[in-house]
Amino acid sequence: MVRPVIALLTDFGARDHYAGTMKGVIMGICPDVMIVDITHDITAHDVLEGALQLAAAYRYFPHGTIFLVVVDPGVGSARRGIAAETADYRFVAPDNGVLTAVLRDDAPRRVVELTERRYARPTVSRTFEGRDRFAPAAAWLGKGIQLSALGRPANDYHHLDIPRPAVADDTLTGVVLQIDRFGNLVTNIDRRTFDAFARHHPIQIVAAGQSVGRLVSTYSEIPPEEVCALFGSSDHLELAAHAGSAEARLGIGRFAAVVINRGEG
Amino acid sequence: MVRPVIALLTDFGARDHYAGTMKGVIMGICPDVMIVDITHDITAHDVLEGALQLAAAYRYFPHGTIFLVVVDPGVGSARRGIAAETADYRFVAPDNGVLTAVLRDDAPRRVVELTERRYARPTVSRTFEGRDRFAPAAAWLGKGIQLSALGRPANDYHHLDIPRPAVADDTLTGVVLQIDRFGNLVTNIDRRTFDAFARHHPIQIVAAGQSVGRLVSTYSEIPPEEVCALFGSSDHLELAAHAGSAEARLGIGRFAAVVINRGEG
Amino acid sequence: MVRPVIALLTDFGARDHYAGTMKGVIMGICPDVMIVDITHDITAHDVLEGALQLAAAYRYFPHGTIFLVVVDPGVGSARRGIAAETADYRFVAPDNGVLTAVLRDDAPRRVVELTERRYARPTVSRTFEGRDRFAPAAAWLGKGIQLSALGRPANDYHHLDIPRPAVADDTLTGVVLQIDRFGNLVTNIDRRTFDAFARHHPIQIVAAGQSVGRLVSTYSEIPPEEVCALFGSSDHLELAAHAGSAEARLGIGRFAAVVINRGEG
Repeated sequence: MVRPVIALLTDFGARDHYAGTMKGVIMGICPDVMIVDITHDITAHDVLEGALQLAAAYRYFPHGTIFLVVVDPGVGSARRGIAAETADYRFVAPDNGVLTAVLRDDAPRRVVELTERRYARPTVSRTFEGRDRFAPAAAWLGKGIQLSALGRPANDYHHLDIPRPAVADDTLTGVVLQIDRFGNLVTNIDRRTFDAFARHHPIQIVAAGQSVGRLVSTYSEIPPEEVCALFGSSDHLELAAHAGSAEARLGIGRFAAVVINRGEG
Repeated sequence: MVRPVIALLTDFGARDHYAGTMKGVIMGICPDVMIVDITHDITAHDVLEGALQLAAAYRYFPHGTIFLVVVDPGVGSARRGIAAETADYRFVAPDNGVLTAVLRDDAPRRVVELTERRYARPTVSRTFEGRDRFAPAAAWLGKGIQLSALGRPANDYHHLDIPRPAVADDTLTGVVLQIDRFGNLVTNIDRRTFDAFARHHPIQIVAAGQSVGRLVSTYSEIPPEEVCALFGSSDHLELAAHAGSAEARLGIGRFAAVVINRGEG
Repeated sequence: MVRPVIALLTDFGARDHYAGTMKGVIMGICPDVMIVDITHDITAHDVLEGALQLAAAYRYFPHGTIFLVVVDPGVGSARRGIAAETADYRFVAPDNGVLTAVLRDDAPRRVVELTERRYARPTVSRTFEGRDRFAPAAAWLGKGIQLSALGRPANDYHHLDIPRPAVADDTLTGVVLQIDRFGNLVTNIDRRTFDAFARHHPIQIVAAGQSVGRLVSTYSEIPPEEVCALFGSSDHLELAAHAGSAEARLGIGRFAAVVINRGEG
């Protein structure tokens, strides 16, 4: 029999024991589990970053994987905890929009509020629901209970407002949503939107007012000292430098505007 | 049969291969093991921080878990290696006090010195006993040997002097012992000591000479721009800001005094 | 039956989902796998650092371990992907020299180019071959396929030029190749070369023009405020301070020259 997989994505950082403590709780409930870290280094309280990293990763995990997602600035407040089930995956998270990008791609078949006390720890800390509520819920799913057992249906879960690219006349405007370790600036412009806009027209790319080099296919095509654009591993347009940081070279950051102008085709 | 769990807590950092190498050694001895990282980012050589992080995490792990704890500024010196067994857990560590907080909470039934050479690697590096002595000892415990087989009894293990809160008249004085990733300042004032002191009196909290807001139950109750106090996930008083860092806001660090004054009740 | 072990060493960092995504891919192909992180914090694009960290760690892993090594500044370019097999281990990596130090120690019995499409994902991103080509290849090896099934023989794989220590008259000259988390400066001078050079002569060590204290056996023998030399856990000469950083104290970095002068014996 295949062992249940629980994949963790949090903003707990690697320095404190928080992520480790959640793993202890999970193994106590579901000893057979296979725990995988996606990352614990989401910027503290950055729900959007958590949502985007999760969306980029989840579909590469085996069907049946349970994602435990804790980026939770509202811990202890009235915000609910939820669990969601799509065709192939299950997710446990605070109801603050951190599942927005995933559930937009992959419509949930069922979403419940984590109301069933027997699937939480006996005492739930108001400062660490990851340990006392979310980790146990994920572990019980791993152990074989149905999602519906975790609590009452929650059809009106929270959605995050993730900026989308916009087309007006001959201009496609997007923004930088993520900056990765290598300094690549990943925008919200997906390949489908770009292709529909650009077709066979010549295009020009401007990032925060600075002109950017041409569209290439791979980092190694980018000339030294230049920043070019390419479609990265999650099929979104990104600005990149060759063996260097586009972020540093352009001096721009998250939410910087990236504008694509279309010429005569 | 349940697989043995070995949980790692070190100051090796994530950048070097040290923690990974210890995992390799463990798997070579005990292939069935489940290895879990608590953290490898304890501040280099900070035995106190290691002791406190371990104490906050260990009780959430399944009974039977073996903790491999390597924060070891005295590596290669005459300081001993030890293994300790409590009712529910086992620990392997240098004898430098890193187990103090745990063994104060949970009295050990047996402590041994790691003298038995057959449970170490054939050659023990004087700069990396984690790899050559501690990891093998933990792995052999996972493999099923008794703690007493690892070496001779060690009843006089090293204790760390962890500051305790003190009451004098109408003042309870503690210190900040840990600062987490979110900038929360965690003190040594536990809930029991606080409750016995405060009872129904009004209280006022002063951190390094600066007055702090009221005692709340959860981060989300803290007004913007304020620092308040609350009992965190390990039931110690902490100073926190809402969606921000109390450390940055107060400009204070570890070992800063936190004073609670009691008024007329 | 023993579960296959796949050990990961990359420069993907802990902040992004990249390493987690590779783990998802691996588990989808080889559900029984045991995934171990060596490190994901190799300096971005630093093939030499990756090669050295891998060489320091691999031999401590159980025989049969598969190493998935992705430090890949040339991703998407014409550089090949390879898999190599030594007596006890297998390795999957870009063909950029990141396996140089390992294959110099442990001659490969077979090296193949990753040409067989059925062991890659159906679409291979030109910006993330770790996910689409290298992780699947490692997972298929874990699943039991032969190395030779992954592609055609590649006998002329890329070698990195790793500086070696040089002896001229009474001087042995090496360089700092790695700096660890503790600020220890690890040189390319191995114990065998050093012993053959120094024999019973008095020696003097100079690092970037600064005289360094004597050769000791362990960090704890180093006097406060001094930097001494010792042979570290991988048997290379390193410069170290006691409970402090030799890097900070000497103010030198990677590739700084370390010169050993031999006096009358």
